[in-house]
Amino acid sequence: MSPFRASAKITESWAHFGFEVADGVATVTLNRPEKLNALTFDVYADLRDLLAELPHRDDIRVLVLTGEGRGFCSGGDVEEIIGELQKMETAELLEFTRMTGAVVKALRECPLPVIAAVNGVAAGAGSVIALASDFRLLARSAKFAFLFTKVGLAGADMGSAYLLPRLVGLGRATELLMLGDKLPAERAEAIGLASQVVDDEDLPAAAAALARRLADGPALAYSTTKVLLTRELDMDLGSSIELEAITQALLMTAKDHKEFYAAWSAGRSPQWTGR
Amino acid sequence: MSPFRASAKITESWAHFGFEVADGVATVTLNRPEKLNALTFDVYADLRDLLAELPHRDDIRVLVLTGEGRGFCSGGDVEEIIGELQKMETAELLEFTRMTGAVVKALRECPLPVIAAVNGVAAGAGSVIALASDFRLLARSAKFAFLFTKVGLAGADMGSAYLLPRLVGLGRATELLMLGDKLPAERAEAIGLASQVVDDEDLPAAAAALARRLADGPALAYSTTKVLLTRELDMDLGSSIELEAITQALLMTAKDHKEFYAAWSAGRSPQWTGR
Amino acid sequence: MSPFRASAKITESWAHFGFEVADGVATVTLNRPEKLNALTFDVYADLRDLLAELPHRDDIRVLVLTGEGRGFCSGGDVEEIIGELQKMETAELLEFTRMTGAVVKALRECPLPVIAAVNGVAAGAGSVIALASDFRLLARSAKFAFLFTKVGLAGADMGSAYLLPRLVGLGRATELLMLGDKLPAERAEAIGLASQVVDDEDLPAAAAALARRLADGPALAYSTTKVLLTRELDMDLGSSIELEAITQALLMTAKDHKEFYAAWSAGRSPQWTGR
Repeated sequence: MSPFRASAKITESWAHFGFEVADGVATVTLNRPEKLNALTFDVYADLRDLLAELPHRDDIRVLVLTGEGRGFCSGGDVEEIIGELQKMETAELLEFTRMTGAVVKALRECPLPVIAAVNGVAAGAGSVIALASDFRLLARSAKFAFLFTKVGLAGADMGSAYLLPRLVGLGRATELLMLGDKLPAERAEAIGLASQVVDDEDLPAAAAALARRLADGPALAYSTTKVLLTRELDMDLGSSIELEAITQALLMTAKDHKEFYAAWSAGRSPQWTGR
Repeated sequence: MSPFRASAKITESWAHFGFEVADGVATVTLNRPEKLNALTFDVYADLRDLLAELPHRDDIRVLVLTGEGRGFCSGGDVEEIIGELQKMETAELLEFTRMTGAVVKALRECPLPVIAAVNGVAAGAGSVIALASDFRLLARSAKFAFLFTKVGLAGADMGSAYLLPRLVGLGRATELLMLGDKLPAERAEAIGLASQVVDDEDLPAAAAALARRLADGPALAYSTTKVLLTRELDMDLGSSIELEAITQALLMTAKDHKEFYAAWSAGRSPQWTGR
Repeated sequence: MSPFRASAKITESWAHFGFEVADGVATVTLNRPEKLNALTFDVYADLRDLLAELPHRDDIRVLVLTGEGRGFCSGGDVEEIIGELQKMETAELLEFTRMTGAVVKALRECPLPVIAAVNGVAAGAGSVIALASDFRLLARSAKFAFLFTKVGLAGADMGSAYLLPRLVGLGRATELLMLGDKLPAERAEAIGLASQVVDDEDLPAAAAALARRLADGPALAYSTTKVLLTRELDMDLGSSIELEAITQALLMTAKDHKEFYAAWSAGRSPQWTGR
């Protein structure tokens, strides 16, 4: 655990998704397979709170998000979320939309690499959760659908209109968010929205291999790379170069870089500690 | 008409391009086919003024831009614009370049989806007008040419050096704007500059179908999607997520989202009103 | 020479790379071929200082960066740089990382087009130097490798986490910078990181042809295009359009634009002076 925890306890059990940690790899499995893992208010709340705690644990170096059954996440449940929203007042609606946005903000600001292992349809909020991850490994049968306009809402949801143009360009993002049509896995790869597409049965192994590699590697190097990629989207050239200079000088004083040089000098492979 | 009009009148007739409105779809047809629809000072002025008025009309939900004959728009007319510029003083030159920029700013800030139906060459200012649209449907024989450097001017014109890197990346934008070479339709599609390429004879039908779909759909959802895509290019992650949370809460109180849920509950298709 | 030089002298000889100027084209050739042109402290310092001087010379219109032998640049030398870093204190480390960042900042802010003729592997700092150039012509056998994490450092180095997402999108940039794997030339072209890939033996001719074209063309138009592309990555839509309006009005008063019109009127080719 981080030395910088005081009164607040770490949550012991997450009731609204599967959660396991094994050898540095945390895995969240959305587990309402009969609903293609549609989100409920509680799933959102648990995701938000888990993401706030994760960086304080020292046993986790990478987070994998995946879904049980044939879907990844079909977005907000039509009955349990959209139905309930019809009864809410303005202030409650805003509390809800802020919670959904907080999940995406936490995914981007989490100083750990996040892998979305997209095993099937990623629709609505499900597509934005995948979008906010660092790596998107897609099963060949998986599809994205930013379908917000199809329920009469803005295609800009949970940061999608910020993130998607920065991944695939403004033209393609406009088309995807305005129209909300399905995007097959291979097309997602062609436009830079999927890191990799694998046969459906190979997805768990591919995600495990990437998670393993990241968990066994120089964790502080990976972590700072992610954090600076996130921050520099909002920074200018000169400030970005300064931030990188300061960050890199810091990492040059850290254990893993010294280990690289020692290993190289000795003609052996580095033993990364992530410190 | 918008309830928020007072003394200023809506222009009744646009003398420098074809303009028609039918069933929610406004169409601007550049109509100097013998000059590949080269722009004159008056065409620019009319485009600027039309784009200022459009959002105040309540009979228009989507704008289509296209050209008569075999060109879309070949840019500023060499005689009627470039020739005249040679005689102008500094202050007039700046008034002209500001007017051209105002057209692009209005296209991006217009809260309606804009479709460029690019029926032939889009060169110089013509290529930037297409670039500033939300959808670019290209005839297979169409070409882009950001040819400003070929007339001795900066490839950065009317916002092209802002927009193009945000659609196709800095590397490709540098090549296109610095060299000014022709870009065929299929290459434009491959790099994300064209939404779709169709056979020349199919372009009017493809543009009409997309315009129909946008005009018949949830207009407020499309409109806010466009506006947030435009704004969030200039916003940071946290502010973008907040803007999306507030916008989405607003849309949850609007008619079309309620209609979606009512229709879904009743097992019928939603009847969008765009409200 | 620029009229705005006073006491400071122009450096007469660069000891740490080949440097020649011929007919408007300056060429830097990294020349430690036995080390795949690995960088030393002195190469960095010379690059920084050369880039500060270049814009003050009036005999140079384009800069070509290339490597001698079978590599372009393999990054910081493991012995001569990484080994030395192990002995440095914090303040010295920061001085080093700031120098490396200054090279990239100077490449982006240099008001001349820069062509990287990538004749072989571009790794680590070598890949960022190519990334910061305006054009990347790659030999078919060339490869990029942003391998910083493989030495235990942040993938964000010398501005890479600012630049790469703006060329290839955030998803692909994350993968390349976090994992540090090799990227073959043809894949670099497919994602917009290479301007062009040519057979290895054709690279010098392709680079020379592009350099010739840029040196013989309207230099002020090229220069302002580059400068505005660089600046507008950090500017909002409205300010960018204003900057372009002012810039273009300026160029309309300059010699090359007038020459275009005179040439067009006379039915001849323009004779660019770059003024």
